[in-house]
Amino acid sequence: MPVSHAHRRAALRALLRERDLDALLVGDLLNVRYLTGFTGSNAALLVHADEADDLTVFCTDGRYLTQSAAQVPDLPRLIDRPSALRLAAVAGERSSRYRRVGFESQHVTVDGLDQLTAAAGAAAFVRAPGLVEQLRLVKDDVEVEALRMACAAADRALAGLIEHGGLRPGRTEKEVARELETRMLDHGAAGPSFETIVATGANSAVPHHRPTGAVLQAGDLVKIDFGALVDGYHSDMTRTLVLGKPAAWQSEIYELVATAQAAGRAALAVGADVKDVDAASRAVIEEAGYGEQFLHGLGHGVGLEIHEAPSLAKTGEGTLSAGMAVTVEPGVYLAGKGGVRIEDTLVVRDDDAELLTLTTKNLVVV
Amino acid sequence: MPVSHAHRRAALRALLRERDLDALLVGDLLNVRYLTGFTGSNAALLVHADEADDLTVFCTDGRYLTQSAAQVPDLPRLIDRPSALRLAAVAGERSSRYRRVGFESQHVTVDGLDQLTAAAGAAAFVRAPGLVEQLRLVKDDVEVEALRMACAAADRALAGLIEHGGLRPGRTEKEVARELETRMLDHGAAGPSFETIVATGANSAVPHHRPTGAVLQAGDLVKIDFGALVDGYHSDMTRTLVLGKPAAWQSEIYELVATAQAAGRAALAVGADVKDVDAASRAVIEEAGYGEQFLHGLGHGVGLEIHEAPSLAKTGEGTLSAGMAVTVEPGVYLAGKGGVRIEDTLVVRDDDAELLTLTTKNLVVV
Repeated sequence: MPVSHAHRRAALRALLRERDLDALLVGDLLNVRYLTGFTGSNAALLVHADEADDLTVFCTDGRYLTQSAAQVPDLPRLIDRPSALRLAAVAGERSSRYRRVGFESQHVTVDGLDQLTAAAGAAAFVRAPGLVEQLRLVKDDVEVEALRMACAAADRALAGLIEHGGLRPGRTEKEVARELETRMLDHGAAGPSFETIVATGANSAVPHHRPTGAVLQAGDLVKIDFGALVDGYHSDMTRTLVLGKPAAWQSEIYELVATAQAAGRAALAVGADVKDVDAASRAVIEEAGYGEQFLHGLGHGVGLEIHEAPSLAKTGEGTLSAGMAVTVEPGVYLAGKGGVRIEDTLVVRDDDAELLTLTTKNLVVV
Repeated sequence: MPVSHAHRRAALRALLRERDLDALLVGDLLNVRYLTGFTGSNAALLVHADEADDLTVFCTDGRYLTQSAAQVPDLPRLIDRPSALRLAAVAGERSSRYRRVGFESQHVTVDGLDQLTAAAGAAAFVRAPGLVEQLRLVKDDVEVEALRMACAAADRALAGLIEHGGLRPGRTEKEVARELETRMLDHGAAGPSFETIVATGANSAVPHHRPTGAVLQAGDLVKIDFGALVDGYHSDMTRTLVLGKPAAWQSEIYELVATAQAAGRAALAVGADVKDVDAASRAVIEEAGYGEQFLHGLGHGVGLEIHEAPSLAKTGEGTLSAGMAVTVEPGVYLAGKGGVRIEDTLVVRDDDAELLTLTTKNLVVV
């Protein structure tokens, strides 16, 4: 399954022509990576609307001379530190071919646009926000495979942690987080996809708790929200476990959240409004009287970013398409007592959504 | 040594008054952290030029209700997801006190400014780039202490790696990088301050090589560029070692780079032009005929970012002040053969610069 960056650039060109743009100056590094495969920390790409790649130019700096030659062998390449400015100058020098150049107005800063405009001379910059992000909404097979591997690394890490007794009274949240991260590396992750959350006891009621020296105790709910990074793609999974026999209130909110989570997953259908997906899950929690304790949206897209479009939330916009990768993660948080969140990463499909995080969602008692 | 965020805000207010600004809308998360201590992933701060903190408002979202109460107890607080927009609206509602509101034009995007302007009503936004960054250039005692701890974690990790035989023929670059990162965690780091570089043999000639499965071999130069993150502050150090008796060419370029690095350190004086610091080190390498093999600038500021102002480079601007934290990192890279870089993190002082990375710069043979 080779990555076809050329194919992605072709899809972008169709969007440029729809907007009557001669080119797009891509300065966002994730967008550059998506379109070229380049993984360094400084680069820009000027994508011309013409099908042939020879008017499309990539620029990075001298630190990445070797790396860019290997990763971007298929495009004309310039080496210069202010990469976006250099490409703006390229457009200016050939302004008859670059009359209307789109720029990523959701990424370019106010000061940055001044600099681009000064460098571009006769080429005119036009706002063109979100074009590459629009393509990135729907994951291709290579992207889904990377997400699958990232989710598998997380699944295996959590299984190993539990199997080897890593979750037990007496350990600290930090120790558990660190073991989980090490295990993800063992299973092929380049690193965690975000700062691992391990929250025990009352801390589990804090949605985004950072691991502390707090000690796991018998009877605690332990909420673990974590993910692995593989080939630039982020997995995201939350499981909440209980140390010893669950109390009645723990079982109650666990079953409630699990039911709400299943309802959210079931609502992931091509054409579904993202607001309705959120509502399908939220209704379960609201009907049980815990609506006020569900403090956040239902989920979000994942890919080259840990949080990207679409947002599955009351305030979200748009509908689902096949190939979108999203999380479904309802939670109920009882302040001072404890909380439960259950989260999967899934890919929307024409039939049922494909589940990428495969760890059981039955309440695990350790 | 308590952190005085209030003191930093007072220093910012002096800059606002100089520019006849009623307030500054701070949306950059590192700048918000610097001024408040808040470490979450969404926040903004509206700093009013009035000395009293009660017109200054902090905003974050519901995920950080508890965390922000603990970290920012000393400021009026709003809870809303679009934090910067909410604060723009606050300025608009009280526009008689917020006539001229500065915004960080080097961070706010073109689209973002439209949204802010729409939210702010009668309050007018004025470009005010780099004000907090100007303060951040000179580190206070709390910041230097964090940098010192970050550098110490890196020093200890490297010492432990060498002492326990972690650098030996047969290991891969990735294995070495991972052990080094684990050892930094053992010594109090929250994580690596950037992706650890371990480059062996010919790979050491690539300035920013990412660790691969390449195997360390007897006779290799091994270049290790890494750092630790402590309390949000980044250390940065490079050492180049040799596996077994060094060849003549290895010793030659090592001594050359070490001499150039010492010259760069000696040039770190209050009032020195950053270009001259670069030149002082670069001259040593140029005189030896390796100027073309020194592919990058001499160094950069470090702090809440791994790369921040000032830039010690041909293209850098400005002069050094006491309290600036910078790296000095010349290198000579012989393509296909091997390279040497030696890098320290230091703080500019009225007398000699204070060295924070204490690992020996003699050629270590392992």
